[in-house]
Amino acid sequence: MTSSQFVPILPIIGIVGLIFALAYYIKIIRMKVENELINKISGYVHDGAMAFLKREYSYLVVFLVIVAIVLVFIRENKLTAVWFLAGGGVSMLAGFIGMKAATKANARTTWMAVKHGQAEALLAAFNGGSVMGLSVASLGILGLSVIYIIHTFKGIDANTLYDFSSVIAGFSMGASSIALFARVGGGIYTKSADVGADLVGKVEAGIPEDDPRNPATIADNVGDNVGDIAGMGADLFESYVGATVATIAIAAAPLISKSATAEELLPFILFPLIVIGLGTFCSILGVLSFTLLKKMEPSKALEGSTTITNVLLVILTAILTKPLTGSWMPFWAVVAGIVTGMIIGKLSEYYTSGKVVIELAKQGETGAATNIIAGLAVGMRSTIFPLLSIAAATIVSYIIMQKAGFGSIGITGIYGIGLAAVGMLSTVGMVMSVDGYGPIADNAGGLSEMSGQGPEIRKITDKLDAMGNSTAAIGKGFAIGSAALTALALFHAYAATAGIKNGIDILNPTVTVGILLGALLPFAFSAMAMEAVGKAAGKMVEEVRRQFREIKGLMEGEAEADYSTCVDIATKSALAEMILPGTMAVLAPVIVGVLLGPEALGGLLAGATSSGVLMAIFMANAGGAWDNAKKHVEEGNLGGKGSAVHKACVVGDTVGDPFKDTAGPSLNILIKLMSVVSLVFAPTLATLTPILERFIGKIH
Amino acid sequence: MTSSQFVPILPIIGIVGLIFALAYYIKIIRMKVENELINKISGYVHDGAMAFLKREYSYLVVFLVIVAIVLVFIRENKLTAVWFLAGGGVSMLAGFIGMKAATKANARTTWMAVKHGQAEALLAAFNGGSVMGLSVASLGILGLSVIYIIHTFKGIDANTLYDFSSVIAGFSMGASSIALFARVGGGIYTKSADVGADLVGKVEAGIPEDDPRNPATIADNVGDNVGDIAGMGADLFESYVGATVATIAIAAAPLISKSATAEELLPFILFPLIVIGLGTFCSILGVLSFTLLKKMEPSKALEGSTTITNVLLVILTAILTKPLTGSWMPFWAVVAGIVTGMIIGKLSEYYTSGKVVIELAKQGETGAATNIIAGLAVGMRSTIFPLLSIAAATIVSYIIMQKAGFGSIGITGIYGIGLAAVGMLSTVGMVMSVDGYGPIADNAGGLSEMSGQGPEIRKITDKLDAMGNSTAAIGKGFAIGSAALTALALFHAYAATAGIKNGIDILNPTVTVGILLGALLPFAFSAMAMEAVGKAAGKMVEEVRRQFREIKGLMEGEAEADYSTCVDIATKSALAEMILPGTMAVLAPVIVGVLLGPEALGGLLAGATSSGVLMAIFMANAGGAWDNAKKHVEEGNLGGKGSAVHKACVVGDTVGDPFKDTAGPSLNILIKLMSVVSLVFAPTLATLTPILERFIGKIH
Repeated sequence: MTSSQFVPILPIIGIVGLIFALAYYIKIIRMKVENELINKISGYVHDGAMAFLKREYSYLVVFLVIVAIVLVFIRENKLTAVWFLAGGGVSMLAGFIGMKAATKANARTTWMAVKHGQAEALLAAFNGGSVMGLSVASLGILGLSVIYIIHTFKGIDANTLYDFSSVIAGFSMGASSIALFARVGGGIYTKSADVGADLVGKVEAGIPEDDPRNPATIADNVGDNVGDIAGMGADLFESYVGATVATIAIAAAPLISKSATAEELLPFILFPLIVIGLGTFCSILGVLSFTLLKKMEPSKALEGSTTITNVLLVILTAILTKPLTGSWMPFWAVVAGIVTGMIIGKLSEYYTSGKVVIELAKQGETGAATNIIAGLAVGMRSTIFPLLSIAAATIVSYIIMQKAGFGSIGITGIYGIGLAAVGMLSTVGMVMSVDGYGPIADNAGGLSEMSGQGPEIRKITDKLDAMGNSTAAIGKGFAIGSAALTALALFHAYAATAGIKNGIDILNPTVTVGILLGALLPFAFSAMAMEAVGKAAGKMVEEVRRQFREIKGLMEGEAEADYSTCVDIATKSALAEMILPGTMAVLAPVIVGVLLGPEALGGLLAGATSSGVLMAIFMANAGGAWDNAKKHVEEGNLGGKGSAVHKACVVGDTVGDPFKDTAGPSLNILIKLMSVVSLVFAPTLATLTPILERFIGKIH
Repeated sequence: MTSSQFVPILPIIGIVGLIFALAYYIKIIRMKVENELINKISGYVHDGAMAFLKREYSYLVVFLVIVAIVLVFIRENKLTAVWFLAGGGVSMLAGFIGMKAATKANARTTWMAVKHGQAEALLAAFNGGSVMGLSVASLGILGLSVIYIIHTFKGIDANTLYDFSSVIAGFSMGASSIALFARVGGGIYTKSADVGADLVGKVEAGIPEDDPRNPATIADNVGDNVGDIAGMGADLFESYVGATVATIAIAAAPLISKSATAEELLPFILFPLIVIGLGTFCSILGVLSFTLLKKMEPSKALEGSTTITNVLLVILTAILTKPLTGSWMPFWAVVAGIVTGMIIGKLSEYYTSGKVVIELAKQGETGAATNIIAGLAVGMRSTIFPLLSIAAATIVSYIIMQKAGFGSIGITGIYGIGLAAVGMLSTVGMVMSVDGYGPIADNAGGLSEMSGQGPEIRKITDKLDAMGNSTAAIGKGFAIGSAALTALALFHAYAATAGIKNGIDILNPTVTVGILLGALLPFAFSAMAMEAVGKAAGKMVEEVRRQFREIKGLMEGEAEADYSTCVDIATKSALAEMILPGTMAVLAPVIVGVLLGPEALGGLLAGATSSGVLMAIFMANAGGAWDNAKKHVEEGNLGGKGSAVHKACVVGDTVGDPFKDTAGPSLNILIKLMSVVSLVFAPTLATLTPILERFIGKIH
């Protein structure tokens, strides 16, 4: 069997995945919720979420069109612009489908808990997530394989293959652009609503979380979907596409120097596509298997499906790698990626649960300050092992492919780094299904509270929600780890296409400066994101206070809160505040490249990736640890709710909110987006003389 | 006039500086304090500080001896070990002199305020700092010039010059080792005492700061000296020595490849020594001029002396550069360094005062959490312009020397980067005098409170203290900026001596991994430092609580607190906790070098420098901003002392303590120490095959 024979199967896998996504969506829609209050509140959440998406997309379409026009001018192959629009469009479509499903599934989860108990509620939440998961994976493989088929329609030769490898960077950049705005906008939205609802509702007015009297409570629930469904989906989609595109670009690079023929390289160009095709196929089977596992403990069931997916993928890859590429080695690089993804996820869970969290909660006994200091230290400490894992994966996958003996045709260890990233991300369909489950369960909990369900039902939804926190931690770790490997792969793809001949020498002062500036960007970006949350939350606080003051009978439950104003405020500030950091991310690599040259831009990417990954892990785990320390106290430990320790831990949790849900996850995108912008921009850059050099001559 | 004719003048400048330091010390000692209580309390502080130093040094001597033995084995030239011991010894001596003077000057400052008013009190505090400042600068130039004279005693040729340039790395490494332990140990000491005193005394018992009933109050005052005098002095001393040593090593590197003669390179090898000689000379004059300026506003007086020093230095360097080196260009590189130092200092002041701080205090109106979030954002945002300044200084000084036209003899732009660092640090005598003033004024404030002086006296010492906060912020910014440039210079010196021929290519995966691991170290190191403070503070809290509980009549002022136990606890935990991070800093470069090779180690240094500088600025400025936001409220704004806003700001201040006084400043040393360890280790590394390569062959 040859790689080319596999190609027609790839879009079919994508279509099958989409059919299953549709089937699950219809299944969810068909579950009737026979409770008017649940339907009403869930309707608010759905409408708020869709309104936000609609408004966000109307901004993003403008952005996409402007960038596409620029691409038409700077890129020789005009199809780059077309695929850029397609990448952005597909990402938006996946976000739309996922949000639609999630905001319908939340009510069904609550209702299933009422009518049929835990197993059916669990299944409803998981199926809701699966719609997003399967859509993301299927649209990705469908898009990439269709682009391949179009470009090689007239025949496979060096030109058509190179064209393909080069223009798909546009697809990836489209996905990344949407991801950045989705993550940043979503992150600001969710936290401004959350902080606003908590500060006035819980702290000032003293009413419980998700109380319908709190005007910001709908915005808060909308935020969970906007941030954790649309944001996370776009994030993983871009990693998935980015890793594949980078690996293809690395495999196709020898075509430029003509050191290998199209025929020799074809198996390596197609292999990443085949791996993600297999991964999507295994994800579909994994998602299907969940129906059989639903009666298990929720955590066991989610883990079971994930294991089924991974084991299947390893078996299929093991069978196919040697026949397709002529070597076992690519298989091991893929496995290195899968294993690293699992390790980093588990490490995130370790630092945001159990012993670490209990210890952190105890630090609240001497007040908020010690709780904060300890949480910051936990976050910083938690970077050690994930970073070592990423470093090990890089070295190991490099060595594996270097030893594979394809150096003569230019397939070196670098290709191995790309494959590790692809391996890690190939099961994104399953990963995202598990991850999407979390916010749906969270929303379901909110709905059962707001609609006044009894303690029995609350117990079920609480249990599902608690499990969701754990999957969220694992998912965040996975998102960061995959972003790091993807960024590294994109970085090498960039270097291969930017005409950099003598390496990127750190001793060259423009490269040194590039590294410094690159390392700076995540700090600057995080500061912007956190300040944006502060500003947006401030507006929300004022509005909630105003409603409590002006709407007569609200506190007594006799009048209804004006939810839509709060939704509106969150939407507007999220969209307004996402523009500056987003623009910075897109422009920074272009400016440094034009000013200081392609080597300096390489330094920028290396600096941004290293400091970005560290900051992202630091923030995600510190935030997660504070969150769970607070929950640990709320479970009745160390004095329980309302105690001094609880108050201290609430401060920690609030500080952690913009860390873990706004700034941290946005950094994942920042590093990938800058890399992919550089990759798209690379051929142009290779033909320019840097401005600095024009003024003072070559400086190294 | 030739460079060689200048050499005999250099040790003379050093000796003259030491004589002035001694004169100021005697002047301080001779001021009689005619108040028994002040004498008694100041005696406690002095004894506690000296006891800490004694114990710390007894540890450090063991460390120095062990490392010296290792150096005897791995370095061909055995004098490296001797100069290593000398560097460590000189740093300890400077610390000892400085502490002795500072802990005597505090009481004199208080007493001068009582007897003669502000001008004399200001002078006493400044003179106390000058003892440390002049000692640091003079011992540095004396040590380095004497080593030069010894090594070239038999004649100046390629061998003797190269030997000199190589063995002085030992001197620098000695200074760095002491600096690390002084900073980390001092940082843990001062914050454990501070947090302990605040949490139990101020918050739980409700007694004011520096109240003699608080058992931790003496330890707190000792801590100010241990951290800000000994720690800061050792920090700047190592930057000063490190920058000079790196620049000399860069200038001497062409001797290895024999691309230039000893005669051609001699002016460039001696130029950094001459610049720091001139800087020390100008610092002496600047310190002397302060006596004339003492009647001005304190801030104006300090700024006046600094300006006099800088202007004199610029004039002298302008006159001498062309005759000594044959080009104007080195002058401009030096000026680039001086200007950058000033800019970074001013930026630190901006982010920790005025508008920024008022805004931050306002964020306390919605509680501690928003105050913390805003402070973290301020810290992150504050990295932008300092980093851009460092980047600009790097590029500008590189271009300047590249254009000087000495490329044919191997004096390239890299030498310019070294000179910028030397220029920035050459006036360390003055910088450290101003910086040493701060903790003395702080202590004087404490003494006037503890000895029950009236509000008139408090007003004077408060004013001097407030000014000290501002100089501390500038000093911290300067320390970070100079550390960054020094680390960059050391990094290039390392590359020049490690036998790295084809540059340090980021595309080499071992280099990529080196960068990732390097960027990780500051995070791991900060986590350790912050956790150490937490642990030490916990012990202190228990002890203070115990004394309040068990010593009858303590709260009523009828019994005396047992200060010495608290001093003892702070000492012991600081020393115990400094070992792990210190060892990590020394071993990390060695391990990475041996395991992954010299290029990977280069990556490690680049990664550590970039993320280390960012984390250091972030932490220093966030901490400074929180501190001053709290002070802003305490001045009566936003409700003043005891208000809800004040409580929120106290939480921010406490979080900032380990940031700005422990973890942040330690990172300055971390990046320099790792670079200088690499430099010392470089010749050995050049002869080894990395372990990874042994197992799997060359991998790039």
